[in-house]
Amino acid sequence: MKRAEIIAVGSELLLGEIVNTNASYISEQLSKYGVPVLYHQVVGDNAARMRETFEIARRRSDFVIVTGGLGPTADDVTKTVLSDLLERPIVRDEEAYETIQRFLVSRNRLMNDGDARQADVLSGADVLPNPVGLAPGMWIAGDTTWLLLPGVPREMKALIEATFPKKLSGATLVSESLRFYEIGESALDDAVKDLLDGSNPTVAPYAETGEARLRISARATDEVTARQMIEEVKTEILKRVGSYYFGSDDETIASHLVQSLSRLNRTFAVAESLTGGEVQSMVTSTPGASVVFLGGVVTYSDELKNRYLGVSLDTIEQHSVVSKEVAYEMVDGLSKTTHADYALSFTGEAGPTSNSGRPIGTVYIGVKTPNGIEVIERTYLHQERNIIRMRAAKDGLWALIQRIKKGE
Amino acid sequence: MKRAEIIAVGSELLLGEIVNTNASYISEQLSKYGVPVLYHQVVGDNAARMRETFEIARRRSDFVIVTGGLGPTADDVTKTVLSDLLERPIVRDEEAYETIQRFLVSRNRLMNDGDARQADVLSGADVLPNPVGLAPGMWIAGDTTWLLLPGVPREMKALIEATFPKKLSGATLVSESLRFYEIGESALDDAVKDLLDGSNPTVAPYAETGEARLRISARATDEVTARQMIEEVKTEILKRVGSYYFGSDDETIASHLVQSLSRLNRTFAVAESLTGGEVQSMVTSTPGASVVFLGGVVTYSDELKNRYLGVSLDTIEQHSVVSKEVAYEMVDGLSKTTHADYALSFTGEAGPTSNSGRPIGTVYIGVKTPNGIEVIERTYLHQERNIIRMRAAKDGLWALIQRIKKGE
Repeated sequence: MKRAEIIAVGSELLLGEIVNTNASYISEQLSKYGVPVLYHQVVGDNAARMRETFEIARRRSDFVIVTGGLGPTADDVTKTVLSDLLERPIVRDEEAYETIQRFLVSRNRLMNDGDARQADVLSGADVLPNPVGLAPGMWIAGDTTWLLLPGVPREMKALIEATFPKKLSGATLVSESLRFYEIGESALDDAVKDLLDGSNPTVAPYAETGEARLRISARATDEVTARQMIEEVKTEILKRVGSYYFGSDDETIASHLVQSLSRLNRTFAVAESLTGGEVQSMVTSTPGASVVFLGGVVTYSDELKNRYLGVSLDTIEQHSVVSKEVAYEMVDGLSKTTHADYALSFTGEAGPTSNSGRPIGTVYIGVKTPNGIEVIERTYLHQERNIIRMRAAKDGLWALIQRIKKGE
Repeated sequence: MKRAEIIAVGSELLLGEIVNTNASYISEQLSKYGVPVLYHQVVGDNAARMRETFEIARRRSDFVIVTGGLGPTADDVTKTVLSDLLERPIVRDEEAYETIQRFLVSRNRLMNDGDARQADVLSGADVLPNPVGLAPGMWIAGDTTWLLLPGVPREMKALIEATFPKKLSGATLVSESLRFYEIGESALDDAVKDLLDGSNPTVAPYAETGEARLRISARATDEVTARQMIEEVKTEILKRVGSYYFGSDDETIASHLVQSLSRLNRTFAVAESLTGGEVQSMVTSTPGASVVFLGGVVTYSDELKNRYLGVSLDTIEQHSVVSKEVAYEMVDGLSKTTHADYALSFTGEAGPTSNSGRPIGTVYIGVKTPNGIEVIERTYLHQERNIIRMRAAKDGLWALIQRIKKGE
């Protein structure tokens, strides 16, 4: 495969309702296998324009990946258009048909024509069972090889993961994204500037809400060699900015905290007001969190702050609910009730209006370690509600990580 | 402008390093002006392939927007490729040149060839000054009209905002996405099949994890007329499948529940185990949630289930923590402590391993209304941890919405 092209089918892409993340995901995967992607195209659910798009791709590319248009509805025409173009009739795949039938039976539903149509495939195609959905994928080898995938990102990804290792080989590109917190993109850039020129491995910077990343990519004949090449550059980078590093690739600040606590065999609890469950949700979406995370509360009302955490109503009246004092009593009460080794509390103004009189973006975070309690103040001015919640959540988790690192 | 096409230039897109958000932004903007976008293309920084891409666009589209490749480096070749294709020489734009010079002087830098090249434009182009960067945009009217824009999203957006209101006018396209829960994509499709053929307004189906959408788009001379056209089709759709409808566009199941409770002036609380804060996070990310949502708990450990909710440790031992009985005692204890009018509890196995002995995907949801308590059982087999959590969260919120609708 020397010239790959990705075609995303779907009018919603042309209306700007969704972003074509499928194309970037597939491009990234193909680059790992050393397959160059030369074009992306997007076309709507229209048979004539789709055919024209497929013809352009067939003329210039030897590997065409098409996502979308395999579903049950009348505007899903990818299979019929490609069937006409390649002169391969459509046939029913019995295995896919049975999968759909089993699924519908489990939901007490009868099969209709649309459901059944999802089991139709192009004759001679290598049918790729869909592990997380109903419509199977198809691999049609030839002068131009076609790979048809569902448009739902989760299904598309599952099929790519199952298919590429079997069907593609050659030079391997391996990447690792190093993730950093509390260091600005340009400060990070300055610190590693001399490493950004390398051609193999390459190092490239990215930014994200409150986070920064450096992606190291190495190309080699095999994965082990590529990983070694990455490891050398990574060691050099961490020597310079390691104190801001919390993990690679899918690791998050929350998963880093869960791992640290697991290693120490310590427990953890959270009391949230403005973050409204966001912090606990971040922690519990890490598999294995239940070993260290006991639980916590979301206390939106003053009454619940009092009842669950023992926050005094006098304190609230005197200092307002968004205050150092309330954050202190929240984390204090929580750790007394749960007996957790470490605990966090969050109170603040996320907007859209301020109930406490403090400016929107004011946040107090209570941090409890075996050494005692500290309250941090943060101000995120001129930010949207969900950005304030997210930044506060990450800042709290990060504060705990820093203290654990110091041996508290 | 009847057939628009968007071409994004940049090898980083083909490597999957960045997502093509420019194309979705421009598509969305064009749809506001009633200009249909029929294709997106992405091509790398390669002159031959770029020319081919431009030729395809010129053949089939009457308005081509190109983003990227206007910068100072040697691989920025968009202007030279289009200059050759349209046979329009490149000339220096004095105003752009002075802007660049002023910018460099303010930073104590000398101008090099690359800097100066950003002031080059195609002869006869309407030059669009860049309010937030150096490279100007270009509008080249003709049988096919070309609009060249910088690839940096901030600069691209500023130029679109300055240019579209002046250059485009005419029909307006308005859309509304109707969102449904608990009805399969294909059942929804069946119910409204006869409406999918309409040309104006159009109706198109979409699917999402556990949800389904129908997008109604109407084209008219003004927004009020377009909204009226949408309203008529919406009324007809809701007549058929209104019981599955929970909101439009950015409305969520959680925001629908918050609105229902606000209207009734009732309160609400949540006790979570497997969903780990996800439900409360969904509820509290709705602005105004604090009026109806009192708060709740995340009880991962048995001890906290007992302490915060009064779940008996005997019940846990006898029936396991993932059981009807524990879900019942959780929601019962929660509503007694919080005095909430409505409450939900969640216990289940999200995986990756089962601690209770029940199959992964087993979930019990306690639903408390002023009429009493009911426990719902759900099984989400062969699903990832985060999908199980998300489905359970939505199913619980939905169950409450249904009961409130019935007047419970």
